[in-house]
Amino acid sequence: MRTVTVFCVLFMLHLCLLDSGRTGKVLVWPMDFSHWINLKVILEELHLRGHEITILVHSANLLLDHTKTPFNVEILQLSITKENFMEELNTILYVASFKLPKLSWWDMQIELAKITKEFLSTAKRVCDSAITNKGLLSRLQATKFDICIADPLSFCGELVAEILNIPFIYSFRFSFGNVLERLCAGLPMPSSYVPGSTSRLTDNMTFLQRLKNWLLYTVSDMIYLYYVFPEWDEYYSNVLGKPTTLCEMLGKAEMWLLRTNWDFEFPQPYLPNFEFVGGLHCKPAKPLPQVLWGYTGKKPETLGANTRLYEWIPQNDILGHPKTRAFITHCGTNGIYEAIYHGVPMVGIPMFGDQHDNVVRVKAKGAAVEVDLQTMTSSDLLNALKAVINNSSYKENAMRLSRIHHDQPMKPLDRAVFWIEFIMHHKGAKHLWPAAHDLTWYQYHS
Amino acid sequence: MRTVTVFCVLFMLHLCLLDSGRTGKVLVWPMDFSHWINLKVILEELHLRGHEITILVHSANLLLDHTKTPFNVEILQLSITKENFMEELNTILYVASFKLPKLSWWDMQIELAKITKEFLSTAKRVCDSAITNKGLLSRLQATKFDICIADPLSFCGELVAEILNIPFIYSFRFSFGNVLERLCAGLPMPSSYVPGSTSRLTDNMTFLQRLKNWLLYTVSDMIYLYYVFPEWDEYYSNVLGKPTTLCEMLGKAEMWLLRTNWDFEFPQPYLPNFEFVGGLHCKPAKPLPQVLWGYTGKKPETLGANTRLYEWIPQNDILGHPKTRAFITHCGTNGIYEAIYHGVPMVGIPMFGDQHDNVVRVKAKGAAVEVDLQTMTSSDLLNALKAVINNSSYKENAMRLSRIHHDQPMKPLDRAVFWIEFIMHHKGAKHLWPAAHDLTWYQYHS
Repeated sequence: MRTVTVFCVLFMLHLCLLDSGRTGKVLVWPMDFSHWINLKVILEELHLRGHEITILVHSANLLLDHTKTPFNVEILQLSITKENFMEELNTILYVASFKLPKLSWWDMQIELAKITKEFLSTAKRVCDSAITNKGLLSRLQATKFDICIADPLSFCGELVAEILNIPFIYSFRFSFGNVLERLCAGLPMPSSYVPGSTSRLTDNMTFLQRLKNWLLYTVSDMIYLYYVFPEWDEYYSNVLGKPTTLCEMLGKAEMWLLRTNWDFEFPQPYLPNFEFVGGLHCKPAKPLPQVLWGYTGKKPETLGANTRLYEWIPQNDILGHPKTRAFITHCGTNGIYEAIYHGVPMVGIPMFGDQHDNVVRVKAKGAAVEVDLQTMTSSDLLNALKAVINNSSYKENAMRLSRIHHDQPMKPLDRAVFWIEFIMHHKGAKHLWPAAHDLTWYQYHS
Repeated sequence: MRTVTVFCVLFMLHLCLLDSGRTGKVLVWPMDFSHWINLKVILEELHLRGHEITILVHSANLLLDHTKTPFNVEILQLSITKENFMEELNTILYVASFKLPKLSWWDMQIELAKITKEFLSTAKRVCDSAITNKGLLSRLQATKFDICIADPLSFCGELVAEILNIPFIYSFRFSFGNVLERLCAGLPMPSSYVPGSTSRLTDNMTFLQRLKNWLLYTVSDMIYLYYVFPEWDEYYSNVLGKPTTLCEMLGKAEMWLLRTNWDFEFPQPYLPNFEFVGGLHCKPAKPLPQVLWGYTGKKPETLGANTRLYEWIPQNDILGHPKTRAFITHCGTNGIYEAIYHGVPMVGIPMFGDQHDNVVRVKAKGAAVEVDLQTMTSSDLLNALKAVINNSSYKENAMRLSRIHHDQPMKPLDRAVFWIEFIMHHKGAKHLWPAAHDLTWYQYHS
């Protein structure tokens, strides 16, 4: 009898902890691939804590299997098939990974602008399929959501939140040249020591590098202001029936949850409504079978007997295995954070996006060696691997980053969840908004 | 028997929590008055967690009773008596409270500079009595401290830390025109929307106010760079036997614990090595006797029968009493935070220092009415009191600030203690330092 009582008390305590009067309804405007992998961890935690999650996902989406998810799913119907969508995306990724690196700095900026615009044309199609669906909109309106969680790399989440008149929050890694952070959120980034994204620079720059960094900010601003934003400004103004800009709408985010932190990122100024939650997806490793290799093609004949091939491997569990000596990575933020979490030195082969910047960071902290994808030979890779395995400084630095990562006042996932629930409960977090939002750019700089 | 076992387990668990391998030796370079009242709360918590605390305190110090403290105390002998010290300080405070407000803006800046220099001449005497005391220095050296906690309004703590070769951390409210934060710590403060300290401006400024704010930054910089810093630069260089500057030494702080937060402060950019711990001294109220009045002079004959006089009253307990309707305050940060904590609207009568800025903040948030000390009549005070008591918006706004204050991911005192222990354990927190420190001002702005 007493056991039952104790169990009941514990169970009620558990329920109290899970539902402290803060549960509510969460609408999600997600991005595919690594963005989704990261966001899903937050959503699963929110689901566990009793919140009701609804995801708006387009029909060509690749990662989210909506038959298996515990979340409500609203499909946004696109005319494109998954196969054609993947083909379009592959073309963009191919250009980003193999064509861009061969271009001059100026041509690279122009090509990046084109890719961005192409990528955003898909975002526009997705947005349209949501905004023009009156049935969907009234269903969403009727649900009375408490918050929208959006990814600003794929615009539209902020527009949906505005239409539904609910607060929204961003899960974010970076924008090119940090245009969105600087121009729309008011983040101060002194070009003298804060390297812009895609710059591949560190926080310790020569005069020429500082000039290049300043140029990156300026050129990115021009590209976005005059080439990317205008059609979206018009689109948002038309939908809302009042003159507005994309940037103004993005600036209304209650908070920006950034998928990075100071264990990894170069320290820089930030604002009270920025929260750094890098590594929120990392967790202790589970036991593994002996040796393995993730691969979906035909088994190569030269493969050694001690190498196993799997279609999908639990990367976090491998990185956390005590015998793991090094991590060969394309330098996505998720993977790098798993390596930092488990204290594993890296061989980085960056391809596109933030990956070149990411390897610059772990190299600067002495936890990685870089290999150039364009020119690498098998001996380059071998030498890099030997270096990070045999030179103990890489392991020591990876362990130092790991210690710093684990020694935080509060875990990144808990902080992310805290602020989402805060905003749901208080209907916003305006007390964290800098007044910079209320100024024009010439007022800001005067 | 089982009760004893359970008790033992709980006691051991308690010890584990208190001493998680992080206890160490803490050296303190404190300031007097409200600074000490606030810092003492951190030190008591550190003491409770098993750290050994040693305070360097000068002989004319007024608040710290070293016969009653649980901390080790090293007295720095000054030739001045407590009475003369108090007299000097009273002269400065009189000028600051009653002479300054009557001056023009320019004259006020000049007078402030003179007061600052006068105040710092005492700091120099205290510093000298520590630095020239070889016996004391070798005792401190031998103790092998893990950290120094200093207050940068009274320079020298950073010098002692440098001599002892230990990391240091600041407990801080503000410097005039935020010169130390901006020039020495690299804090970006856009003059367009971040009002400088002593400006009495809000974050919502007209063009002329923005100009005035920019002027405040510029004039303060000039005053410090050319009038205040040079003698300290020379002093520090002489003591250390190498060319250095005061600002360079201040910039070495591992972290700045600021006695404010966004429940109270206007949101502004900050750096990863700034932690906002405003209100860390606040706690739930204890029960009180019926009515009371803190007063040390002769009892006025006109006093009503329902007003009692006490030499010292527990302000926090009064503010937390459910019948407390309003708080008449000189607008010190500690008092304002107690009012925010307990959700009590305020009548502010600021005198000097940050008090004018403080009342601007609580007024902007709708939780206070200001009365001018220079011109006030008893009916001004009465009307102000009637307003905050009878107009429910003041109470509602005070309660809103209170709800925000209580709804933090982690309590301010816990965060302060966390970072102190982090720095002791990791021997610093360099991963939070912006690279701005390595740049000259012309590199920073280029």
